[in-house]
Amino acid sequence: MNRRAALRFEVQAQDGHARAGVLTTRRGPIETPVFMPVGTAGTVKGIRFEELESSDLDARIILGNTYHLWLRPGIDVIKAAGGLHRFIGWNRALLTDSGGFQVWSLGDLRKISEEGTEFRSHVDGSLRFLSPEVSMEVQAALGSDIVMVFDECAPGNASHEDTERSMQLTARWAQRSKTSFDQLQATGADAGRLESNELSGAQALFGIVQGASHLVLRRRSLEQTVEIGFDGYAIGGLSVGEEKSRMFEVIDEIAPQMPKDSPRYLMGVGTPEDLVESVARGVDMFDCVLPTRNGRTGQAFTSRGKLNIKNAQWAKDNRPLDESCPCSVCRRHSRAYLRHLNMSGEMLASILLTHHNLAFFLDTMRGVRQSIRSGDFPKFRREFTERLSANGE
Amino acid sequence: MNRRAALRFEVQAQDGHARAGVLTTRRGPIETPVFMPVGTAGTVKGIRFEELESSDLDARIILGNTYHLWLRPGIDVIKAAGGLHRFIGWNRALLTDSGGFQVWSLGDLRKISEEGTEFRSHVDGSLRFLSPEVSMEVQAALGSDIVMVFDECAPGNASHEDTERSMQLTARWAQRSKTSFDQLQATGADAGRLESNELSGAQALFGIVQGASHLVLRRRSLEQTVEIGFDGYAIGGLSVGEEKSRMFEVIDEIAPQMPKDSPRYLMGVGTPEDLVESVARGVDMFDCVLPTRNGRTGQAFTSRGKLNIKNAQWAKDNRPLDESCPCSVCRRHSRAYLRHLNMSGEMLASILLTHHNLAFFLDTMRGVRQSIRSGDFPKFRREFTERLSANGE
Repeated sequence: MNRRAALRFEVQAQDGHARAGVLTTRRGPIETPVFMPVGTAGTVKGIRFEELESSDLDARIILGNTYHLWLRPGIDVIKAAGGLHRFIGWNRALLTDSGGFQVWSLGDLRKISEEGTEFRSHVDGSLRFLSPEVSMEVQAALGSDIVMVFDECAPGNASHEDTERSMQLTARWAQRSKTSFDQLQATGADAGRLESNELSGAQALFGIVQGASHLVLRRRSLEQTVEIGFDGYAIGGLSVGEEKSRMFEVIDEIAPQMPKDSPRYLMGVGTPEDLVESVARGVDMFDCVLPTRNGRTGQAFTSRGKLNIKNAQWAKDNRPLDESCPCSVCRRHSRAYLRHLNMSGEMLASILLTHHNLAFFLDTMRGVRQSIRSGDFPKFRREFTERLSANGE
Repeated sequence: MNRRAALRFEVQAQDGHARAGVLTTRRGPIETPVFMPVGTAGTVKGIRFEELESSDLDARIILGNTYHLWLRPGIDVIKAAGGLHRFIGWNRALLTDSGGFQVWSLGDLRKISEEGTEFRSHVDGSLRFLSPEVSMEVQAALGSDIVMVFDECAPGNASHEDTERSMQLTARWAQRSKTSFDQLQATGADAGRLESNELSGAQALFGIVQGASHLVLRRRSLEQTVEIGFDGYAIGGLSVGEEKSRMFEVIDEIAPQMPKDSPRYLMGVGTPEDLVESVARGVDMFDCVLPTRNGRTGQAFTSRGKLNIKNAQWAKDNRPLDESCPCSVCRRHSRAYLRHLNMSGEMLASILLTHHNLAFFLDTMRGVRQSIRSGDFPKFRREFTERLSANGE
């Protein structure tokens, strides 16, 4: 690259494969390993940005989704606001997914060709076409700080042959993404451009390793992706229906081989134990809808395992969701009250459980980072895992 | 009364009929005129208590509802928590409605007798019976700071004869409410008992004036209610389908005749202009679901009138809901973003519009209070009303 870096990444402590460091985007520094709350349609569902910024959560980076935002409100609306940060009112870092995974999830509703993917909008039924070039254009208009390449995902149980075909397509799309991305950066299409931190001020672009559960294809995909060269590297196509043991086989094999001086991002994973176990294998970044989605259906993540707030056993339980959680929900509200809100269909049930769940995920990552820096990660990992099964729910 | 007062009320400034003062409950002082957000089932829908307490809103008193809380979660649950304040985690003042209006609203699903009202629960279909005695028992268990008598409401268009019958029943129920309430206070049934402010520490009880649109019956109801003697007096049975001009006829006639040294509470009313117009007629307290309910359906109240966030004209409008509103929503988010959230069915649309609407109602009351104290209320009233029609929506 003949330009200044779009982001800086520094590993500052290591404990086995686990790494603690700082990822600096044009919006400022982010301590890793980091969990990124998912803000699909320009909102992390059920929570205000003020709460995400509060010391309770202190989320430093959230996700946005190219697919959803492109369909609604549409790029013209977001451009009129001056990019996604300004449109939604969030000044911290944003990573946008490319839309590849979402159109792949449409199943029979989409048609994949060499050129890209044709599909019908779930919003208005119109025929749409998404390709590496379109995705890069949309993400430049969004002005996210980290852009993901447009990739193709193979099902968790795909054959070697099908997976190889898909993986090769992903490699060609990755190259096209990079080419298009570089042109867009050169022409100033990036709505979020911001000079700071001795960085280039441009967006950063991450490549994605595919290959389903086939380790030989995963290794080849990693090589191809690194050869093209990106600001960071992601493992995609996991947690899509495969056995958990297969998922960890892939992470075991691939994460430690990923470039040591670049951030490693495990896409769409996972439970709190998945996060800790993946950190142990060298992963730096995570996103997952679990804390928000499960919060809306009444499931709380706690240090002693999952808790379903609908259960009758909590009807008169005046304890907080998690007695060792310092979040504002646990400081103020009881299981009995949260159960009442849920049973009554009150929006506040979702709001409060979402807040607590995000606090638990983000606190867990804070604990992970501290333990790596102090050399206590193996102890943290062991105790964390033991506690999680204490509830037995 | 041979006991210390349960609340203190002091009118400190007057401008025409409009009064500014301080209502002190056992939970502390509340400046009047005051708007009380409605927290039917133990939550002001869509907003966290932290927000209600923030300087943005600073709600000093909210409503709870006997009918809803009695049916769900049930009084045993709330007693197990030590009363409604502790159950929901709200330490400021609470006023509870008696359930009279809610069972009346059930229409054909309830049967009214001298003894009380029989009805089927909307939660589980069980047969329930609510009477002055039951309502007082439930409200004592809730431990609200202000209790309302159990009353009977007549439809806005009821005949003189029907209204008189209903009004006389309300008077007998008011006496039974008072008798039962005094016994419950004496036996320490009040879950919220709190010594403070040189007050008795007991709950306060408000009487309700009924009589539909028949001024002669309204006057008689007021006399009967004052004769029984309460800590405060409410006007009930308005905003239930009658013409707005009839509503103001009743307020015009009754409010100024209500005891000058007691708080006057207009139940279930109304729009921002209704509030200001009723203050002009001597009312001190209000509650209404409009800011929260309409917030959930996409309607914003602004200083320039109502604004429907669904309208296509806001699609690219980067202005806040209300350019003269200092609330956190208007400081941060645009109409375009709020419209996008609403169109996408995102919970955050309801959360943010509810916040703004409550801020507008509570700010309006702050403006009302200041203008009364500075002798500028007529000017405030005139300018407020003129601005409201500026949008013409």
